[in-house]
Parts: sequence; structure tokens; C-alpha cells
Amino acid sequence: MTTQRLVAGLEPPYYTAVFTSVRPDNPEGYAEALDRMKEIVQEIAGFLGYESARTPGGIGITVAYFRDEESLTAWRHQAEHQSVQRHGREHWYEAYSLHVGKVERSYSFERR
Amino acid sequence: MTTQRLVAGLEPPYYTAVFTSVRPDNPEGYAEALDRMKEIVQEIAGFLGYESARTPGGIGITVAYFRDEESLTAWRHQAEHQSVQRHGREHWYEAYSLHVGKVERSYSFERR
Repeated sequence: MTTQRLVAGLEPPYYTAVFTSVRPDNPEGYAEALDRMKEIVQEIAGFLGYESARTPGGIGITVAYFRDEESLTAWRHQAEHQSVQRHGREHWYEAYSLHVGKVERSYSFERR
Repeated sequence: MTTQRLVAGLEPPYYTAVFTSVRPDNPEGYAEALDRMKEIVQEIAGFLGYESARTPGGIGITVAYFRDEESLTAWRHQAEHQSVQRHGREHWYEAYSLHVGKVERSYSFERR
């Protein structure tokens, strides 16, 4: 789940899918499913990258970046992804939220 | 920095300010400044809440929710916040990005 670098080089407009969740630390099958999702999302045209963080004992936040609504819709409808979402609701997550936003303004800083 | 519950009850449209960052674990003055920012952001009309997560050794992600562009602008221009941003660039962060998006669609799940 760890990402250590930020997604760079995004030029608005693009979309953010912010997924926030509460779940146990290591639910059965979770790590494998996550690895698989990371793999197949790369096949979505317009997928621009993702970042993920989770505080031990706290919540998890994943942000996925997409070029346009079509690419987001393709990911939402991806069959294997849908099956994992169902499994997640039934077995892994106590709660989650998804916020899909159209980014009109962004800013990046990197220390020299 | 830990939040353990998700922000609930958001009705689109609203705005997400996604702040992703790379920084050392406990920079000097950081915790105190964060506490102060958490306090003063509450005074911004239209501030709806925030969530934050940070993987040890990884990146941090904070998502702040605002009702409209005016409330986001008020927070961006808040004098004490601007001073902390400057300090963060000079002393705390190796890198960060900010993505401001207008949310048109959101979804929440909570296990019964």
C-alpha cells in the first residue's frame, strides 16, 4: 500500500478519485487483491497514477488520477474491479467514501 | 495527524483540496503548527471537515472539504496559514502537491 513519491506532471483539467476507508489492518485476501488492482488499473487509458497512505490505527486514503470522465467510468465498470469492490464491502471495509472531483487548479512544490 | 473517522454527510457539489506530501517524520515545530491550523480552519465559513493519513516511511495525504470556491479562497488567503505554508516550504517538506477539485459525485458505504 505504500507509495513514497508523489505523482508528478499533471496538467489540469484532470480528475481525482479520493477513496477514504476504515478497515482492519490485514484482512484476508486484501493484499493480493490490491496488488492485482494496481496491475489492472494500468491498463485503463487515461489513468495517470495514484498515491496511497494509511496511518496505523487510523484511516486509509488513496487518490487516483484520471485524465477524463471516460477513463474513470472505464475503471468503475472494469469487471474484476467491480467484483473486488463487492468483496470489500462484504468482508474488508467498516466504512468508505469516494469523492470524484474535476481538478481545475493544482500546484506542486519540490525542494531544490 | 491521525483521523479515525470519515467525514460524513457531504452533498455535492463541494470541493476537495488534496494535499500530498513527503517530509521527515517529526520536523521541528510541525506538530504545534498542525494543531494550530486544525484550530483556525474551523473558523472558515464553508469548511466541511478533513481527513488525514500518513504511512510511516511513506507519503502523507490530507483531504480538506469545502463548500465552495469562496471558502477555499478564504483558507488559502488566511494570513497565519500563509505564513505556515512558507515555513513548510523552507523547513519541513521535501515535496508536496495540491489538487483542488470540484466534486460532482460521491458515495459512502458503512457496514451495518
